[in-house]
Amino acid sequence: MPSYTPPTKEMQFLLHDVLNASAQDIEGYDELDRDFTNAVLEEAGKVAAEVLQPLNVIGDTVGCTLENGVVRTPPGFKDAFDTMREGGWTALDCNPDYGGQGLPFLVSSAVTEMFSSANMAFSMYPGLTHGAYSAINAHGTDEQKEKYLPKMVACDWTGTMNLTEPHCGTDLGLMRTKAVPQSDGSFKVSGQKIFISAGDHDMSENVIHLVLAKIPGGPEGIKGVSLFIVPKFLVNDDGSLGARNGVSVGKIEEKMGIHGNCTCVMNYDEATGYLIGGEHKGMRAMFTMMNEARIGVGMQGYAQAEVAYQNALEYAKDRLQGRDVTGTKNPDGPADPLIVHPDIRRNLLDQKSFVEAARAFAFWGANLIDRSHRNGDQDADGLVSLMTPVIKGFLTDKGFELTTAAQQIYGGHGYIEEWGMSQFARDARIAMIYEGANGVQALDLVGRKLAQDGGKHVMAFFELVKTWCKENDSDEMKPFVEPLKKASKDLQAAGMYFMQSGMKNPNNALAGSYDFMHLFGHVCLGLMWNWMAKASLEALATGASDTEFYETKLATARFYMARQLPMTGTHLARIESGAEPVMELAAASF
Amino acid sequence: MPSYTPPTKEMQFLLHDVLNASAQDIEGYDELDRDFTNAVLEEAGKVAAEVLQPLNVIGDTVGCTLENGVVRTPPGFKDAFDTMREGGWTALDCNPDYGGQGLPFLVSSAVTEMFSSANMAFSMYPGLTHGAYSAINAHGTDEQKEKYLPKMVACDWTGTMNLTEPHCGTDLGLMRTKAVPQSDGSFKVSGQKIFISAGDHDMSENVIHLVLAKIPGGPEGIKGVSLFIVPKFLVNDDGSLGARNGVSVGKIEEKMGIHGNCTCVMNYDEATGYLIGGEHKGMRAMFTMMNEARIGVGMQGYAQAEVAYQNALEYAKDRLQGRDVTGTKNPDGPADPLIVHPDIRRNLLDQKSFVEAARAFAFWGANLIDRSHRNGDQDADGLVSLMTPVIKGFLTDKGFELTTAAQQIYGGHGYIEEWGMSQFARDARIAMIYEGANGVQALDLVGRKLAQDGGKHVMAFFELVKTWCKENDSDEMKPFVEPLKKASKDLQAAGMYFMQSGMKNPNNALAGSYDFMHLFGHVCLGLMWNWMAKASLEALATGASDTEFYETKLATARFYMARQLPMTGTHLARIESGAEPVMELAAASF
Repeated sequence: MPSYTPPTKEMQFLLHDVLNASAQDIEGYDELDRDFTNAVLEEAGKVAAEVLQPLNVIGDTVGCTLENGVVRTPPGFKDAFDTMREGGWTALDCNPDYGGQGLPFLVSSAVTEMFSSANMAFSMYPGLTHGAYSAINAHGTDEQKEKYLPKMVACDWTGTMNLTEPHCGTDLGLMRTKAVPQSDGSFKVSGQKIFISAGDHDMSENVIHLVLAKIPGGPEGIKGVSLFIVPKFLVNDDGSLGARNGVSVGKIEEKMGIHGNCTCVMNYDEATGYLIGGEHKGMRAMFTMMNEARIGVGMQGYAQAEVAYQNALEYAKDRLQGRDVTGTKNPDGPADPLIVHPDIRRNLLDQKSFVEAARAFAFWGANLIDRSHRNGDQDADGLVSLMTPVIKGFLTDKGFELTTAAQQIYGGHGYIEEWGMSQFARDARIAMIYEGANGVQALDLVGRKLAQDGGKHVMAFFELVKTWCKENDSDEMKPFVEPLKKASKDLQAAGMYFMQSGMKNPNNALAGSYDFMHLFGHVCLGLMWNWMAKASLEALATGASDTEFYETKLATARFYMARQLPMTGTHLARIESGAEPVMELAAASF
Repeated sequence: MPSYTPPTKEMQFLLHDVLNASAQDIEGYDELDRDFTNAVLEEAGKVAAEVLQPLNVIGDTVGCTLENGVVRTPPGFKDAFDTMREGGWTALDCNPDYGGQGLPFLVSSAVTEMFSSANMAFSMYPGLTHGAYSAINAHGTDEQKEKYLPKMVACDWTGTMNLTEPHCGTDLGLMRTKAVPQSDGSFKVSGQKIFISAGDHDMSENVIHLVLAKIPGGPEGIKGVSLFIVPKFLVNDDGSLGARNGVSVGKIEEKMGIHGNCTCVMNYDEATGYLIGGEHKGMRAMFTMMNEARIGVGMQGYAQAEVAYQNALEYAKDRLQGRDVTGTKNPDGPADPLIVHPDIRRNLLDQKSFVEAARAFAFWGANLIDRSHRNGDQDADGLVSLMTPVIKGFLTDKGFELTTAAQQIYGGHGYIEEWGMSQFARDARIAMIYEGANGVQALDLVGRKLAQDGGKHVMAFFELVKTWCKENDSDEMKPFVEPLKKASKDLQAAGMYFMQSGMKNPNNALAGSYDFMHLFGHVCLGLMWNWMAKASLEALATGASDTEFYETKLATARFYMARQLPMTGTHLARIESGAEPVMELAAASF
């Protein structure tokens, strides 16, 4: 059976040694001293390791079932959800006006990672609820907020997001679900939505669906889309539950993974809905929390790689197979442990060097979101908007790749379900797809974010890297700064290529969008390893007692520079080959 | 539901335009004219598309079950197996002395690819039988051959390979299964074997297990391993079936994929076994057919990518989503098909340019095996031995990567089981693991094959590429030759680095073994695209009527050169970073 150890020490290192959180001038950050965050992380870690992780395999094997229109979650899920609720774990960064704890998004993100590593399918129930909460909190009327949010913050009621229809996912302008206005100001919502995570279940009293639909007579396409609150049970004015609404589960999808989360086909048949965020302003309301949601999915990517790495490492230390070619390491045993073999180490370090930098990158993103939301910092908002598709796309692609790399350490034992590595890979796969498939993330990055505000934010990113390199020109930082400089030069060259050749033909930029997203990701992780190396060198210089921890960080940073960062050259070469190799074939000739 | 169209035209192009098979001076190749191979491929394609492919999904969803010690295959499998048998499809390249058709391995490989694309789990039953047949054919006594081979060639009896035990897979020297000699010359075999594909089932009268075991008192480790024939039912001298032998199925493993193939735990309890290949010569007997078996697994890797690509392409042409940014392509529809989008094309071309070159590479490998086996050509044997770990490791890694890329084209529909893309990905995953995990392939390549016969074979490979580049220095070949030269230079630099620094410390070579395998793979596929480009230019110059086919080949070749081959630079950079980044961390510090 797989296990999970919450990486609280790693998180504390990032929060304090690297990000120096409590010294940042962000509202509420002054509370974030080492003791406080340690207490939160330790307690959350217990829930993750002791409550959620033991249900991960059963969630996969039993899955959700639909019985007479009612969804049943796997055994143990309801009790675990009650534990989460009672501990206040669903309310960490929520609005205190509605029962939330008002903690920074940075702190709740760290907790989210642990819950996701422990049980990704389970963590989606509070995750989706949080997304729906955010939309109502940002765009609901006071009455709507008072009616729904206290129950949603407590997860007495859970939430969903209904976007996709059978014939449209990315291109929501094609949607057919209709919302017909009624004389009392409500709407009758009719249509079918698919792939609705946490669409229905037996763990909460009510489910609050947020549904995108078109009001007849409105603008064509995406400009005519509005957002509606459609509760499973209507809510009376006194807050009690009223009649069952016209929404039902058509079926539960059979999926590759995340079986513990019910992915539902939802049928709306003149269901009563309440407009939120204004007529035809549905996409704006939906996109409000997109940065948060996409960073959350990026975290799922590396969170699966983290737990898979932990297990692969244990296996590599335990499993005896073959001998170290440079000399026996385990003379009393029949063979040496796998970890003596260079290619096993190469694989493990690919995983380790990714996961630790990915966490730093996601934490930095969460930090910028706090700076944007709490301090109203437009530059932080622009920078995190730029990086969000990279966090989502790059971290989930690499997260899946490295989860399957961890599976590979087990040989045949990785392919059978008994050891749990297959589930990690199957679960991680979805993160590349939902919340905007990664190709769409690349399109968002290159087609929209690069040019946003006149390219201001990408210039700010380049400036940030340049300043870092200039200010850290010491001998001991050189092994980290020099590779970063080279990688950043590749990124700038790619950006320059897009500017120049994309003017002539936008396909010159779009054909390289996916490579650009990965190139950007490598530069960001290279920067993260620079930050972590610097923090480690400082800790060692000031006499930190845990020298092994910091020396290990430096060695892992060196590995990333030597073995991962060179990838930027290949991405640049592909990008600079332009549109022609991609566009020249007629569709019929493929 | 997914579909499959046998790529017979692609195969004919390789057999005749590229490899010019019927003109090769290999015994039996003179028969391989266009009409003959076309007839074989068309008929095999019908079996693949009409008999095997329709059972692929049911094989996955129903799987195999163990009832009172008897394994039941999914509904329809037995009838399909009878069809295969009656059509002689299990006997294509087998020894005519025992009922085989004696066709070249090249031809049977093409057929194997189709069966594997259509139904990978099913195709393993005849596949394993063929492996066992090969071992007995090469190492059995005349009596053993006459007793077992006719039935195995006809697949009235199927075969298995029993290597792995719970505590040892790669390191077979640790094995515990014992074979105790009996006075009649037979042995009593006792022990447990795991991960036995096709270990037992209801489609044949008997199962002939080939089992590795140790004869007590023999040499320690791998040198004391012998190979035994252990039939499920003992075979009487007249060929009729006798008593049930002491071998039983412990359980069927739950796996990530290939559910249609029963992966069994096999328990041997004083089962009667017959030595094959001499005492303590088990590994030699087992390795005889290793090149063939590993090329077969390499084919499984790209065969799944092929069928996944076919389906992704259809989806990309059908699914309407978004608009071409350079101008609407489908003005009468609500949106343009996915295939107008540059990143969708980039993804499809990644798949297409891989699959077609992978097929060429595997066919070339099969061709070299024929040259080695049929003409006794030692150089061909050396070259294919060198390339076998590349065919197995690189083609299965990339095969899985590109199968998941095809899955990505479907967005959310790729993650649900309904569309079949998840199965392709889950099935393809095993090919990276079995028949020697890909890390072991890399070790075999760098630790053994490079230096084999004084490095003669890798020098021959370099010479082959160099000669090709020199002889094809024309303007029209330059776009293909120049990138190949650069890639080959990277490969030679990596080889040089291994020679020089590996002498000082073997870990300098082993730490780069995985990258070297991929670097080698890219150079081989670059060479294949050169061959295919040359053949296409010649066909066009000599007035071939199907210009679109050859123009498409040239465009796909250009894509590979522009978008895939640059990867060699990154692999070289990683290799040249040497052992230190990989080896410096103590195992306890990971």
